[in-house]
Amino acid sequence: MPITPIGFITSPFKQKFAIPRQPNLAKAKGHITLTEQFNDIRVFKGLEGFSHVWVLFQFHKNSDKGWKPTVKAPRLGGNETLGVFASRSTHRPNGIGMSVLKRGGYYKHNGLVQLEVEGLDLLDGTPILDIKPYLPYADICESATDKLDDYAPIPNRQVVISEQARASLTKASMTHSDLETLIVSVLQQDPRPAYKHKLDDDPKEYRVMLYAYDIYFYVQQGTLVVTQLKAV
Amino acid sequence: MPITPIGFITSPFKQKFAIPRQPNLAKAKGHITLTEQFNDIRVFKGLEGFSHVWVLFQFHKNSDKGWKPTVKAPRLGGNETLGVFASRSTHRPNGIGMSVLKRGGYYKHNGLVQLEVEGLDLLDGTPILDIKPYLPYADICESATDKLDDYAPIPNRQVVISEQARASLTKASMTHSDLETLIVSVLQQDPRPAYKHKLDDDPKEYRVMLYAYDIYFYVQQGTLVVTQLKAV
Repeated sequence: MPITPIGFITSPFKQKFAIPRQPNLAKAKGHITLTEQFNDIRVFKGLEGFSHVWVLFQFHKNSDKGWKPTVKAPRLGGNETLGVFASRSTHRPNGIGMSVLKRGGYYKHNGLVQLEVEGLDLLDGTPILDIKPYLPYADICESATDKLDDYAPIPNRQVVISEQARASLTKASMTHSDLETLIVSVLQQDPRPAYKHKLDDDPKEYRVMLYAYDIYFYVQQGTLVVTQLKAV
Repeated sequence: MPITPIGFITSPFKQKFAIPRQPNLAKAKGHITLTEQFNDIRVFKGLEGFSHVWVLFQFHKNSDKGWKPTVKAPRLGGNETLGVFASRSTHRPNGIGMSVLKRGGYYKHNGLVQLEVEGLDLLDGTPILDIKPYLPYADICESATDKLDDYAPIPNRQVVISEQARASLTKASMTHSDLETLIVSVLQQDPRPAYKHKLDDDPKEYRVMLYAYDIYFYVQQGTLVVTQLKAV
């Protein structure tokens, strides 16, 4: 069964490390540009009636890795395993991911049909396989339960931007007005590996890349301190 | 990008006509049987922690039909169109569908790994591409809106089973104990074409196939009357 990307995403996430565990955890914005074959504005007719969309995509940076019956589960601290079909791991047969994103506008720009989306958890350049409206009456499953839900809550850390980083951030914000919001929402979730989350003092310098900036931080008394912002 | 089915579904729906508009509208039960390549019980390890699963599948009965930029929308009465990416139409590029289903048990039966699922809206024999746990914290999007939601509510009709059909149903229920529940929940939603929904008296005899039975009905004073049940 052959699958063809219908488009590709432009996202501030240039490397996997910074990507939130699920969509809508960070307020990352981006857009999908349709490929030539699907470049027809009519494909989105009526989409303004829906506030959110499902985006199906390819985990293209894993596609060569194959699959295993079980995967390490970050929510279980990274040591225990879950069956691949009991997880949302990116390492899975067929490598298809799905994210619910906020719908933005759609338009033709330089002859290319684009759809804005918000709440991204997708790597820049990810091939998009489908876009479907989110249907509350079908997709909101009130009775659904998840026993792991209380197991590893998503961290909600304080984030502080140092004076030195502030100067670079002010400058960078002229190009990317949402950069500060993005940095804070990504770092709040503590992108360190899960087993480091118990370290409230962690002088090691970590780096995340957002847009074309490397953002350096360390952890002090539970707060993530941004030390530097460097254009890549 | 090549895609390989990880399994195939066994479902009471043998033809498209009877299939509910979305999953969980009818209480249809079935199971996914994994293909030889994925036939390893470990793939489901820990799935019992989740009450629901997403099932990604192929709209295999449409795969030869290609796609169009717009599709007729049953929710708009079938005359107006929506962009293909503003609809959940089965006629779409890449032909991938997604349904949230209730998780049942998983086990090895005659050497084959199977997963029971409930709330099916899938045609018998549909190729399954992926199974993912439903994660309430990520997939329940409380703020999502759908302007079409009040446009064409799903019918909730009375269903009556005639004496003649009752005798056959009692017999058939020995093999398929859920058959009566299934018939009622499918017919409640009025499987007639959307433009017929305004007809409260419609003597035309319709037929839906569930398991290996043809079920005949007509509509009288807004009630769907099952006239006959015939083994196919």
